[in-house]
Amino acid sequence: MEWKFADDSLTLHTDLYQINMAESYWADGIHNRKAVFELYFRKLPFGNGYAIFAGLERILQYLRDFHFSESDIAYLSNELGYKEDFIEYLKNIKFTGNIYSMVEGELVFANEPILRVEAPLVEAQLIETALLNIVNYQTLIATKASRIKQVIKNEGSAEFGTRRAQEMDAAIWGARAAVIGGFDSTSNVRAGKLFDIPVSGTHAHAMVQAYKSEYDAFHSYAKRHKDCVFLVDTYNTLKSGVPNAIKVAKELGDQINFVGIRLDSGDIAFLSKEARRMLDEAGFPNAKIIVSNDLDEYTILNLKAQGAKVDSWGIGTKLITAYDQPALGAVYKLVSIENAKGEMEDTIKITANAEKVSTPGLKKVYRIINRENRKAEGDYIVMEDENPQQEERIKMFHPIHTFISKFVTNFEAKELHHKVVEQGQIVYKSPTLMEMKQYAQDNLELLWDEYKRSLNPEEYPVDLSQKCWDNKMRNIEEVRNMVHDIENR
Amino acid sequence: MEWKFADDSLTLHTDLYQINMAESYWADGIHNRKAVFELYFRKLPFGNGYAIFAGLERILQYLRDFHFSESDIAYLSNELGYKEDFIEYLKNIKFTGNIYSMVEGELVFANEPILRVEAPLVEAQLIETALLNIVNYQTLIATKASRIKQVIKNEGSAEFGTRRAQEMDAAIWGARAAVIGGFDSTSNVRAGKLFDIPVSGTHAHAMVQAYKSEYDAFHSYAKRHKDCVFLVDTYNTLKSGVPNAIKVAKELGDQINFVGIRLDSGDIAFLSKEARRMLDEAGFPNAKIIVSNDLDEYTILNLKAQGAKVDSWGIGTKLITAYDQPALGAVYKLVSIENAKGEMEDTIKITANAEKVSTPGLKKVYRIINRENRKAEGDYIVMEDENPQQEERIKMFHPIHTFISKFVTNFEAKELHHKVVEQGQIVYKSPTLMEMKQYAQDNLELLWDEYKRSLNPEEYPVDLSQKCWDNKMRNIEEVRNMVHDIENR
Repeated sequence: MEWKFADDSLTLHTDLYQINMAESYWADGIHNRKAVFELYFRKLPFGNGYAIFAGLERILQYLRDFHFSESDIAYLSNELGYKEDFIEYLKNIKFTGNIYSMVEGELVFANEPILRVEAPLVEAQLIETALLNIVNYQTLIATKASRIKQVIKNEGSAEFGTRRAQEMDAAIWGARAAVIGGFDSTSNVRAGKLFDIPVSGTHAHAMVQAYKSEYDAFHSYAKRHKDCVFLVDTYNTLKSGVPNAIKVAKELGDQINFVGIRLDSGDIAFLSKEARRMLDEAGFPNAKIIVSNDLDEYTILNLKAQGAKVDSWGIGTKLITAYDQPALGAVYKLVSIENAKGEMEDTIKITANAEKVSTPGLKKVYRIINRENRKAEGDYIVMEDENPQQEERIKMFHPIHTFISKFVTNFEAKELHHKVVEQGQIVYKSPTLMEMKQYAQDNLELLWDEYKRSLNPEEYPVDLSQKCWDNKMRNIEEVRNMVHDIENR
Repeated sequence: MEWKFADDSLTLHTDLYQINMAESYWADGIHNRKAVFELYFRKLPFGNGYAIFAGLERILQYLRDFHFSESDIAYLSNELGYKEDFIEYLKNIKFTGNIYSMVEGELVFANEPILRVEAPLVEAQLIETALLNIVNYQTLIATKASRIKQVIKNEGSAEFGTRRAQEMDAAIWGARAAVIGGFDSTSNVRAGKLFDIPVSGTHAHAMVQAYKSEYDAFHSYAKRHKDCVFLVDTYNTLKSGVPNAIKVAKELGDQINFVGIRLDSGDIAFLSKEARRMLDEAGFPNAKIIVSNDLDEYTILNLKAQGAKVDSWGIGTKLITAYDQPALGAVYKLVSIENAKGEMEDTIKITANAEKVSTPGLKKVYRIINRENRKAEGDYIVMEDENPQQEERIKMFHPIHTFISKFVTNFEAKELHHKVVEQGQIVYKSPTLMEMKQYAQDNLELLWDEYKRSLNPEEYPVDLSQKCWDNKMRNIEEVRNMVHDIENR
């Protein structure tokens, strides 16, 4: 893509206020104080019982390239009027911090840190917007894909959404996220090339129209493509499309591999059953029926309930845009910062919306797995100096309804964060996309079915350790006292 | 951005089936037959009465660069297994056709061609996916922005959505589309640089947390930034935030320009009225109140009805993702193709979903403007050889409920398509973004208010000429006869 500037960089892909804050930090000489930010979302999307994290690889690419290009600097200076001293400082900035992150394909829940950034304040601040932009979208799509895949089960699943995606990055990164969430393939050839995803597709209505005769179009397609799927709904599915597909398949016999037909409009339940009958009667019991047309987990569930005869599902709009909830609300909050004496101090944000209160301090997340039944008991968030792996028994309690509690013994505590960036250097090698997909699938086995139900799933426990909870309450109290003092000054 | 391949091109940003069809066309020697495709959507988004077209500039950039790069070719050949003869052909393909398009900022309605591609069949086919990907998103966001702007009216409007956008392209192209739709500014600095959009923003909660003391944070921000907006809801809006903002503003007096405060949580109606009172009493009647927090046209309308005191609105998630309808369903249909004798023949697509039937033939779109009141009577779609500019009186009738009709005289017929690409060369120079925004605004003046209402607007007439309608009926009849023949063979 040719941009207005040859050195277009993603470092400017941030909100203006980040640069304003960077300037204040720098002017006050606190820009290099160590800051810790955590990235998390407050509510699971789609009413789902879990989410699947995606976006780390893109984040690492972004951080590796993090620097203001010449034209960025010129823009900040000439167009936005930042002063020369600060501009000089920005010229050499790069990312020098540490990042601890979950891996792509990890199951993740509300209010637990997906990743933690420990970096000089100014650097941690400047990267916020891009990190959220990446994680919010990719995690949303991986989660939506997984939800849909739960309904599709072992039938084929293809991502077909590029034309309806929210611009080009969404199309390709969404295709990748869909695979992490469990999908088999994408129709986007560029995504296939960039991310080693199997690509799928046959022909469109336009081809049938271009040949005028549907029979001619199918015949012509078959001449050049051994594996044939014919799109049968350009004129009339049952009266023209299916009969023409059968005619061509019979005539060409072993010269082609008649994979099947695709339905893209009309009543899929009825048409698929009729088409199945026609294909079977014509001697093609192995020909598959592939369907598409604004499908999602709800329509698929209904079609299956009505006995639709479908072998493979192509999912477009509803997946690639996460149609029923097109944004994940992940946020990035400062939880601890170095003070003038060089000590780390916890920080909190309190607002009138109670669920927006952040949890202060450096924290780690463990998945507590029952050794007997190999099911997860819940996730357990602890302060950095705690280690549940060295404990025999832990008390898990609900962070709001604290009376809901249980003691857990005979457990395995799996730490979910990995150090992926160390002093600005990437120290993590991404697994392949297929490994991420497998990882997500294996981890879903740890969840009871009750958490995986698409409608009204049980709430999976994400609990704070006693120490973490006490620390949060202490911080809230401090802020209340501070506000009280201001009121009475 | 560093990709896996240095020569990543957008030419592969297409669905696999386009390449499969291209191969068949090429193998059959019909790839250079002249084809005409039209791009249009079938239903206005958000229940709105109009849409605003955006995306042309991106399309022209894409077409200018249209060619398969070396790594594209290697992928198609080595990974996807396309045969050598076809691969050789693809190596030199570029776009050589004509494109007639509406301009960005144009008001557009359902079932009228936004743009028309006349090109060799294979080229027109290969560009389909990218064109739809671009137009669907950018037009959706320009339209959503216009809807929101109708409610905001003359108060400030800023696009704040990057962190919740569906990946990076959506953030920047969405910011641009928001401006076309009427917004003043964006928070995304890269979008500001690439598209000459004013950027806006001040500081975030993290800054208040970083300084621990809200007073210190505001004071520090003010030292370096003359124009100050303080974010007042980190700890407690009315007890801490607003008092601290007032204290700093009083202390620094003329040393700063106290622009105002920003509210980002809590009950905006209540808080804005209280904050307004406090600012007024403190002697800052000109200090502005800027609000954000999951706003859209519905919440703004309600806040205004409750007398919220707001001077400027920051809109994030709901705008940048078009939250209540995150996809526009624009399609791209073959309407005419050259036959073996070199004559153009119209084509149609008919399916079980009646509203999906396409309108065949080369068509032009005119906006019929009443010379007396300068209001639009409707849009009028004609065959290419018709010209309503040479007619005294036209009959406009509803294309489905044909009894709804009117005769129009004393009108101006404004042609909406412009030739933007001629034999592959771009022959159109985009106006500036601010000109596009102005164009949209001026054109909205042509619409009666009934079409601009956000809830249940009147349906704006988009009518076919008698010739165009007759041609469609004739094509439908031909297909019906063809299907009948197949049934009885």
